[in-house]
Amino acid sequence: MTCEQKARKAQPDRPVHIPCDSLLSWSSDFRNYEGVFNWGALVLFLGSLRVCLENLLRYGVRVSARAWIKFLCGDVFQDDQVYFPVLYLLLYSLVPPLVTLSIEKRLAKSQLGWRTGCTLHVLNLVLHLCMPMLMINMTCLNIGLISSVLACGIYTTIFLKLISYIQVNKWCRHAVMRRTLINKHMYGNGDFFLRERKKTFLNMKEYNQKTEKDEKDEDIEIVDKNLVHWPNNLTTKDMLYFSFVPTLCYELNFPRTDRIRKFFLLRRVLEVFLGTNLMLGMIQQWIVPDVVNTLVPFDSLDWPLTLERVLKLSIPNHALWLAGFYLFFHSFLNTAGELLQFADRDFYHDWWNSGNVEKFWQNWNLPVHKWCVRHMYKPVLHAGFSKFQASMIVFFSSAFFHEYLVSVPLKMFKPWAFIGMMGQVPLIILSKKLEAKFGYQLGNLTMWASLIIGHPLAIMVYYHDFVIQNYGHSLVTFYGQINSATL
Amino acid sequence: MTCEQKARKAQPDRPVHIPCDSLLSWSSDFRNYEGVFNWGALVLFLGSLRVCLENLLRYGVRVSARAWIKFLCGDVFQDDQVYFPVLYLLLYSLVPPLVTLSIEKRLAKSQLGWRTGCTLHVLNLVLHLCMPMLMINMTCLNIGLISSVLACGIYTTIFLKLISYIQVNKWCRHAVMRRTLINKHMYGNGDFFLRERKKTFLNMKEYNQKTEKDEKDEDIEIVDKNLVHWPNNLTTKDMLYFSFVPTLCYELNFPRTDRIRKFFLLRRVLEVFLGTNLMLGMIQQWIVPDVVNTLVPFDSLDWPLTLERVLKLSIPNHALWLAGFYLFFHSFLNTAGELLQFADRDFYHDWWNSGNVEKFWQNWNLPVHKWCVRHMYKPVLHAGFSKFQASMIVFFSSAFFHEYLVSVPLKMFKPWAFIGMMGQVPLIILSKKLEAKFGYQLGNLTMWASLIIGHPLAIMVYYHDFVIQNYGHSLVTFYGQINSATL
Repeated sequence: MTCEQKARKAQPDRPVHIPCDSLLSWSSDFRNYEGVFNWGALVLFLGSLRVCLENLLRYGVRVSARAWIKFLCGDVFQDDQVYFPVLYLLLYSLVPPLVTLSIEKRLAKSQLGWRTGCTLHVLNLVLHLCMPMLMINMTCLNIGLISSVLACGIYTTIFLKLISYIQVNKWCRHAVMRRTLINKHMYGNGDFFLRERKKTFLNMKEYNQKTEKDEKDEDIEIVDKNLVHWPNNLTTKDMLYFSFVPTLCYELNFPRTDRIRKFFLLRRVLEVFLGTNLMLGMIQQWIVPDVVNTLVPFDSLDWPLTLERVLKLSIPNHALWLAGFYLFFHSFLNTAGELLQFADRDFYHDWWNSGNVEKFWQNWNLPVHKWCVRHMYKPVLHAGFSKFQASMIVFFSSAFFHEYLVSVPLKMFKPWAFIGMMGQVPLIILSKKLEAKFGYQLGNLTMWASLIIGHPLAIMVYYHDFVIQNYGHSLVTFYGQINSATL
Repeated sequence: MTCEQKARKAQPDRPVHIPCDSLLSWSSDFRNYEGVFNWGALVLFLGSLRVCLENLLRYGVRVSARAWIKFLCGDVFQDDQVYFPVLYLLLYSLVPPLVTLSIEKRLAKSQLGWRTGCTLHVLNLVLHLCMPMLMINMTCLNIGLISSVLACGIYTTIFLKLISYIQVNKWCRHAVMRRTLINKHMYGNGDFFLRERKKTFLNMKEYNQKTEKDEKDEDIEIVDKNLVHWPNNLTTKDMLYFSFVPTLCYELNFPRTDRIRKFFLLRRVLEVFLGTNLMLGMIQQWIVPDVVNTLVPFDSLDWPLTLERVLKLSIPNHALWLAGFYLFFHSFLNTAGELLQFADRDFYHDWWNSGNVEKFWQNWNLPVHKWCVRHMYKPVLHAGFSKFQASMIVFFSSAFFHEYLVSVPLKMFKPWAFIGMMGQVPLIILSKKLEAKFGYQLGNLTMWASLIIGHPLAIMVYYHDFVIQNYGHSLVTFYGQINSATL
């Protein structure tokens, strides 16, 4: 306390003023804004509540279990007969894995040469990918849109799994062939087999460390004897386990858990059940009206109104995407993993913290990312291509499958999904530059913005083209007239 | 690395799976969600952008400088004559301070007894408070709504300042009288005066410390001689300075800054100018349509629709309140402080971090809070009331002035502002319980919710009653019919 302050304090007017800056002045050192976080959360919540209420007041309750069962399964009853087209599709999806297994068995017994085997594999896989296209486009079967998407997803998954299966079995076959050759030519028989395996596959450093502790080496040998070795893995049971396990990368000895955690499983199953219903209700109640409302402005190129409608659609659509991410990558894949006692639950990393779009693609869908690295990126690099070329090949394949997953169910071949996916490449370059120049926050914001705005744009474009293709342009004009009369 | 992992790594199938939990599982230790903050900010921004765009598309540009000049000033031209009713009000507001000064001067010279002086003060203050009511309700003058609110605000401010002025001068008068009495009766003359002042007003501890260092004591005496002492403060210049200075608490020696910081002043003045225009534009463009839209649902007791409309109003209204807070408590009061070289800029604390509603009231408006503590809460405690009773008296007076600031400009005496302010008492008790039981976050959320929801509710109720009183119920019915025909 200075002399002046003391002298002032001693006055009979009981002074209360002390020289100081306002908290929000630059010159004050105040930086505590933790309450602002709550404010943001509350405003977001109240805004969403308002939009939900507005939706309910304008459209009434549109959730209807009957409507989405029909939408989900397609017309089950046709001409007094019961059809289960999706069921046929699902059942057929088990055939190609069994074909692949039998080809691999023959390859293992050297009953088939690699060229014949490879041709058979390609034929089998191409037929596999074409099957949903054929079934969905067969006019006598009326397969619902969502079940078509699901079926295409399952077929794509199995396709990727089979690629991995074939490639891994080829690696094993080559390794065993190489070893047998060396064995025969140089040593004759003996326990060379085991020693050679160790030398080849433990890297040198580890091997040197190990030779000092021979006990540990023996431990490894014991464990090794308990593992499945090629060609003992070529069984129907192993193939079926791989078909259902939540990963796209095949290996002979998957890490397993000791037991099924019952409460964990129960929570995940409940999440899947309740979450799916919530999502379907949300689509009917909230997404469909907003998507329908984009039609006329977009068709008549009314850009300000289109932007407003896309922004309106973006919030529920993004909420749906987030819910879908959680339900599939956390609840559903963990359910499958728990049931099959599959120990590796590394299905996603913290993509929400990604500082650029590339990190998002590396972190949000790990089963696909791991598959791409192991079975496409690395083999392509190994074949002598550059890193950029390898990345481009990966994005190109990814774009192909995105297109496949959209065009086949919609029975409409428009290149938007393909373009959207290939558009990620310049977006990645842009977001990396933004991150490098303006820091993490802006890179992260770019990632979120591309998610929040990209999806509703794609949905709007596809819906517009779908309506034009299926109902013609006259419907859009008619709908526009109704709208302008009532609003 | 365990033996098992090593043995697996040595296999030719290049395994990629490692046992681990998903990041979002309870069992994982992952807690990094910094990207979610950006997500929230972006969703909030896009949502607001969408609402702005919707508003613009629905209502077009409604900002009009001419309309708000009329609204602000009232009808300047009437019957070919020019009236400036607000100017008359503002000019008259300088009269009561001068009257108070002259009464205080006479009290200081003992030309008036305290009873007569007190009666004159009360008459002067009551007349002062009644003046805006008389002027605004005089039908020949058409004073605009916002200028009425401003005029009432200025009159209330001066009223509180005068109360403080009178009370502080009374303290000084009593201190001097007591000292003079003791002096005369016990010692005769001498330098007793100075010693006595030190003994009385430095508290004992500080005084004991000081006696050890007599040099410092002398310093204090030097500073003290430079300060203004009663009754030298009773000048017109001092009164005018106090009338304009951004505080409600009078003292004889305000802390002063050395110079006017020109760039600081320029920034604040620009903020006031641009911010006021922004706020007025926002009211025309965004608040007025939303307020008008609450009329019919609220009048016809359509609760779901009323809730939707209140929530819709709450976001722009809250944005306006936040902007208004910043503009008044930071930009405007700092402008005044800088111009008058007033050093105490402690106009608000970090109310945004308040853990309960009481802390909000203690932190958001410090000029009023300091006045209440110094001139109402402490004197009432001193008079023998309990802390709770003192708090209630403070809230009661605050409720009175809130009512005054709303009812007088609207020319409509409804108790809603009074009830709203008294309703803070149970809200404080509730939010304190929530904070104690569920922690800071929930208390802070309660504070924000009461702000965000409370204001639009009050606005809706007042607007409804205002329309009914001024235009009758038939207009509301008519307006409802138009609405239901077009929507």
